[in-house]
Amino acid sequence: MQYQADVTIELKSGMLDPEGTTIKRALEHLGYETESVKTAKKYTIDLQSENIHAARETVEEMCQKLIANPIIHNYSISLRELQ
Amino acid sequence: MQYQADVTIELKSGMLDPEGTTIKRALEHLGYETESVKTAKKYTIDLQSENIHAARETVEEMCQKLIANPIIHNYSISLRELQ
Repeated sequence: MQYQADVTIELKSGMLDPEGTTIKRALEHLGYETESVKTAKKYTIDLQSENIHAARETVEEMCQKLIANPIIHNYSISLRELQ
Repeated sequence: MQYQADVTIELKSGMLDPEGTTIKRALEHLGYETESVKTAKKYTIDLQSENIHAARETVEEMCQKLIANPIIHNYSISLRELQ
């Protein structure tokens, strides 16, 4: 079966987010007030797997071994079957 | 009212995504086969606005003026009211 995983990698709370701070400041210069701007990365991964449980396990392993840094990142996985 | 916007910035189809290609290859080295890996940025913006329509308009303007590059990016906005 073909699955698509959306993996979102966010900075843990308390971690500095200089890109977010820079965008907040740039928006202020353009006249847009915001309370906060936080950045995250999204990875859309298409993969083959036997079933959705195996697919989730595989993507969890990918996150733990490569995509996320557990010291500074939280990650979340949203998975769906492609027809 | 307080709103939170999730802005997702994706590369238009056909644009090269070297980071995605690199991650796909690194996953292969670790033994994980994937069909494709695509990267995107997510910005979570908290802002005050009169109502949800005005909030959406403001975030649209932010995307067009600063956050997205219309030549290479598609963007989508998901907006919700914070209590």
